Amino acid sequence: MQLSSSDILKLEQRFRTNLINCLSGFKTPHLIGTKAKSGITNLGLFTQVMHVGTTPPLMGILFRPHSVPRHTLENILETKEFTINLVHNKILEQAHWASGRWEKSEFDATGLTEQYSNNHFAPFVAESKIKIGLEFKEQHFITANKTILVIGEIKVLIIEEGLIAEDGFLNIEAANTLAMTGLDSYHDTNTIGRLAYAKPDVHPKRLD
Amino acid sequence: MQLSSSDILKLEQRFRTNLINCLSGFKTPHLIGTKAKSGITNLGLFTQVMHVGTTPPLMGILFRPHSVPRHTLENILETKEFTINLVHNKILEQAHWASGRWEKSEFDATGLTEQYSNNHFAPFVAESKIKIGLEFKEQHFITANKTILVIGEIKVLIIEEGLIAEDGFLNIEAANTLAMTGLDSYHDTNTIGRLAYAKPDVHPKRLD
Repeated sequence: MQLSSSDILKLEQRFRTNLINCLSGFKTPHLIGTKAKSGITNLGLFTQVMHVGTTPPLMGILFRPHSVPRHTLENILETKEFTINLVHNKILEQAHWASGRWEKSEFDATGLTEQYSNNHFAPFVAESKIKIGLEFKEQHFITANKTILVIGEIKVLIIEEGLIAEDGFLNIEAANTLAMTGLDSYHDTNTIGRLAYAKPDVHPKRLD
Repeated sequence: MQLSSSDILKLEQRFRTNLINCLSGFKTPHLIGTKAKSGITNLGLFTQVMHVGTTPPLMGILFRPHSVPRHTLENILETKEFTINLVHNKILEQAHWASGRWEKSEFDATGLTEQYSNNHFAPFVAESKIKIGLEFKEQHFITANKTILVIGEIKVLIIEEGLIAEDGFLNIEAANTLAMTGLDSYHDTNTIGRLAYAKPDVHPKRLD
């Protein structure tokens, strides 16, 4: 099946949205926790989350255009703090539910629990096994569609015991972290293996 | 296990790189195909690939700092065209190998096959089941670590028959697309299910 630019724009909107959202491949749903200066907490489900760098440790999140209220984005810009919490299979439905348009805090709405640690202003999700506290660094406006990339620096990591290998590899599969495709499809995973750092003229080797 | 900002910076570098790279969760290895004006082709393996928008259809790729030669980035800026090709289990080792520092074209080096279609200047990977042809739109420099976000608009889609559902959902799992975590760990996946669009006061429902 081959689609040109004009074929793509002629697709029915929901069809196009589903198709294009699937092209970036597997991703992971992340719960982002924030708190307004007024004290109201917010929890949102985001899948456009990206590794940006290690030194300093940076992550990026893409937000939809700020043409309607975006509590998570507004709280980040107001308080400069947020958390990213990985979702495992036992909290999948609550996490998905957090993406609804709630009037009240999504913590109250979904039953997930606020946790505060290390003087971090924004709430972590107590039920998550891998919790990341970040500080806002910069934002970039994507001209082509008015989305906003926010870059944060990692200030705190709270990780359940037993998940980090000797070389620093974090076994998110052992933490029952879910993979996601498109807007609504969830998957669990099986390890195939780790491959050694690629070198020319040496066929890739398994690490284990 | 709890790590503060200064604990993280004290970690041995390889350990920190592995750990921080795992935090963004599952992602998908994508082969990016380009061709210099001189005619030399290039193929690189990238995992920081993000859905940016549907109308127009946009994708983003994060490149490491341009302090050393980056053939993929240079070809994109020179020719304004590139392709993104999803990796399935039968081409995993060749795809991983493409990330080595080759002198010659990674197509020749790994045995993957160049494919040209729809007047797109950049080569697709013939063996891939999901191929995306893009045009460069804009770039953003991340001040915090000098990485570069490139945004491209989708101009061509070439997708194997039988992978797209009636509502546009693209079944990348049926295409044997691999998930990845960290720098080198590959995973296959099993569908748990699709969840209906989240609404307040209605517990999330399975779609199937």
